[in-house]
Amino acid sequence: MAVQTVASATDSTVDLGPAAALSCRECGHRVPLGPVFACEECFGPLEIAYDFSAYDTEELRKQIEAGPANIWRYAPLLPVPADVATKPNINPGWTKLVKADNLARELGVTGGLYVKDDSGNPTHSFKDRVVAQAVEAARAFGYTTLSCSSTGNLAGAVGAAAARAGFRSCVFIPHDLEQGKIVMAAIYGGELVGIEGNYDDVNRFCSELIGDPAGEGWGFVNVNLRPYYAEGSKTLAYEICEQLGWRIPDQLVIPIASGSQLTKIDKGLQELIKLGLVEDKPYKIFGAQAEGCSPVSVAYKEGHDVVRPQKPNTIAKSLAIGNPADGPYVLDIARRTGGAVEDVTDEQVVDAIKLLARTEGIFAETAGGVTVGVTKKLIENGLIDPAKSVVVLNTGDGLKTLDAVAGTGLTATIRPNLESFREAGLA
Amino acid sequence: MAVQTVASATDSTVDLGPAAALSCRECGHRVPLGPVFACEECFGPLEIAYDFSAYDTEELRKQIEAGPANIWRYAPLLPVPADVATKPNINPGWTKLVKADNLARELGVTGGLYVKDDSGNPTHSFKDRVVAQAVEAARAFGYTTLSCSSTGNLAGAVGAAAARAGFRSCVFIPHDLEQGKIVMAAIYGGELVGIEGNYDDVNRFCSELIGDPAGEGWGFVNVNLRPYYAEGSKTLAYEICEQLGWRIPDQLVIPIASGSQLTKIDKGLQELIKLGLVEDKPYKIFGAQAEGCSPVSVAYKEGHDVVRPQKPNTIAKSLAIGNPADGPYVLDIARRTGGAVEDVTDEQVVDAIKLLARTEGIFAETAGGVTVGVTKKLIENGLIDPAKSVVVLNTGDGLKTLDAVAGTGLTATIRPNLESFREAGLA
Repeated sequence: MAVQTVASATDSTVDLGPAAALSCRECGHRVPLGPVFACEECFGPLEIAYDFSAYDTEELRKQIEAGPANIWRYAPLLPVPADVATKPNINPGWTKLVKADNLARELGVTGGLYVKDDSGNPTHSFKDRVVAQAVEAARAFGYTTLSCSSTGNLAGAVGAAAARAGFRSCVFIPHDLEQGKIVMAAIYGGELVGIEGNYDDVNRFCSELIGDPAGEGWGFVNVNLRPYYAEGSKTLAYEICEQLGWRIPDQLVIPIASGSQLTKIDKGLQELIKLGLVEDKPYKIFGAQAEGCSPVSVAYKEGHDVVRPQKPNTIAKSLAIGNPADGPYVLDIARRTGGAVEDVTDEQVVDAIKLLARTEGIFAETAGGVTVGVTKKLIENGLIDPAKSVVVLNTGDGLKTLDAVAGTGLTATIRPNLESFREAGLA
Repeated sequence: MAVQTVASATDSTVDLGPAAALSCRECGHRVPLGPVFACEECFGPLEIAYDFSAYDTEELRKQIEAGPANIWRYAPLLPVPADVATKPNINPGWTKLVKADNLARELGVTGGLYVKDDSGNPTHSFKDRVVAQAVEAARAFGYTTLSCSSTGNLAGAVGAAAARAGFRSCVFIPHDLEQGKIVMAAIYGGELVGIEGNYDDVNRFCSELIGDPAGEGWGFVNVNLRPYYAEGSKTLAYEICEQLGWRIPDQLVIPIASGSQLTKIDKGLQELIKLGLVEDKPYKIFGAQAEGCSPVSVAYKEGHDVVRPQKPNTIAKSLAIGNPADGPYVLDIARRTGGAVEDVTDEQVVDAIKLLARTEGIFAETAGGVTVGVTKKLIENGLIDPAKSVVVLNTGDGLKTLDAVAGTGLTATIRPNLESFREAGLA
């Protein structure tokens, strides 16, 4: 099937479960399911429109609770065939929702503080959730190669999922990436192509490839498969609510890179309400950025509806998108729900990584430092109510961003005897 | 409570669930539960003796299946109080049992090949299972500091668990460890003490500290808490069988460091049989070592009952114990069950890491390269029957041993245009 950037031809025979069509987020124009991502009418982003009308709430709840311990327990709510759990895939999700009582004490939260710890996914970041969706879309559209541009988590997630699911993979990265990151992406044995240029050059090249016959049969997980891929983030909302006993938390703190994750979590919560799986109650969504890449936070604070692009300069590289596509939607959601968007300095990010590790034994990626740091700041400035429940997302693993905390070291060095031990004051 | 190396005084009031006493593995001498690890009669290792007599098989199965998605679903079979799941702990386990169909095809296995992937644990190694048990024992005995000597996985597991469970931690490591490993251990904020000396010096110092008043109130997870700690490995047997639909696999391939994990998995399987939770059927246990540290493998092949110590020299550092305490028990089990002990070269370890990543999208630690490599070798030499089911353990995460596969890199480097892409033969 040829790659298309704008919907026109489609394949109405694909079975992606409850996914009924693609619908433009801006103008509502609907097109049949296909490997397209931009509206032919207004160039707005296409999203999945579902038909959930056949579901009985209690039947659905029972089906989910009896499902597998991964995202496929929510297959009835995702653009995947009903038998998805039997197909080879990386099967992410159902990660721990940690009741963070020690951290709550430090931050003065009395209403219940939870960390949704997505470092428990197969390649240790939330990207496994979205890539697993893209795999099923790629299968439905007959693609044979999975691809993406990446500087980190996404490369590993695509490589691993393609290996398991039986796709060829071809991942494009800047050629001068750190050796550790290259190993993490290369180990899965797919094509790993270094591009002589920076990340912008890599992206530009990928866009060229999508429009060329050479890209035929290629699913770029976050480009031509983006409407499907993005839905993976909804599963974070589903899991959080189910793990809380089918309740929506009062407040959620979510990192912002492109902003897609935050908007899809909101979409997931709205779906659960409409389906009757959770009580309809107010909730506040807070977006978290690093100061060195804070276009949405700046727009929020200045009261703008549009997001002015920034040139990123932060240690939180997995969030370093200077021109976030879903920025305006994030602003809408923060304002609609009574939340906010806030940012923290790199120093606060490092402090927050250490705080989370010291209190809860969770070693987060820099993105987790951003959300924990922002949570602390929002409590201090009164925007988060500590008497109500808070869920903070950790979307990645500290082992992947060791450089950010490289200063952490030995607390003492002693000779191997008790005298030296006592001298060091350790007894 | 003072630290003891040999049982005499004990605390008969501790509530550790079904754990009834400590029993010597050599002479069967029983002593009450306490922080002791060596028999006062013969200096043999003490193990937990249970009272499972009150259990109804089907009630127990239902209770387990309704339990939490971590090792505490097996609380009725572990030395922990019945309400353990409500206490702060790291809650490891219930990791994925991956049906490895791609790897099976490569290795010619037709009877079902599975990878038990313990990289999904909180600090990404099986050590979280054993440390979580030690935490509950430490709590029962009134300890306030958790400690260990370590050069890797154990340091992180102890640091994380102590942070969550509210213990002080003090971990001893050789002072000249690689910076990355120091960061992984230091991030949890406990005391991390570098000892001027090698790993043997660290261990010798720890033994001194246990016998000194300065060590009062200290639980060394793998020394004075070892009988409790070691039981954590049983949960691997429980999970594998439950995840296979309460069936024992025909063949298991398990790495050997001290040999404790292998012996406890065998103990777990025997318990499941006695409890009626699985059918009593033959199974074969295979031990896996790296050639550069293969004392048990050498003893097995030479037909010895005793294990001659070796000086380790292998990239599989998490298995590099030259004088494995449970070596003789491993030999017994391999022979009793009709299994074997085998070893592979470091080159084969690296090849096996890449094979597993390329076929199943699982990036294993060197220890996982050892088990996969040994599985391949045992199939080739006819000791593993490919027509019967095989479960291979991956006990750790490739992100922690990146150096071992540092040669893995880009498959191509191109300029950011289609012409260069075509020249590289990627289309």
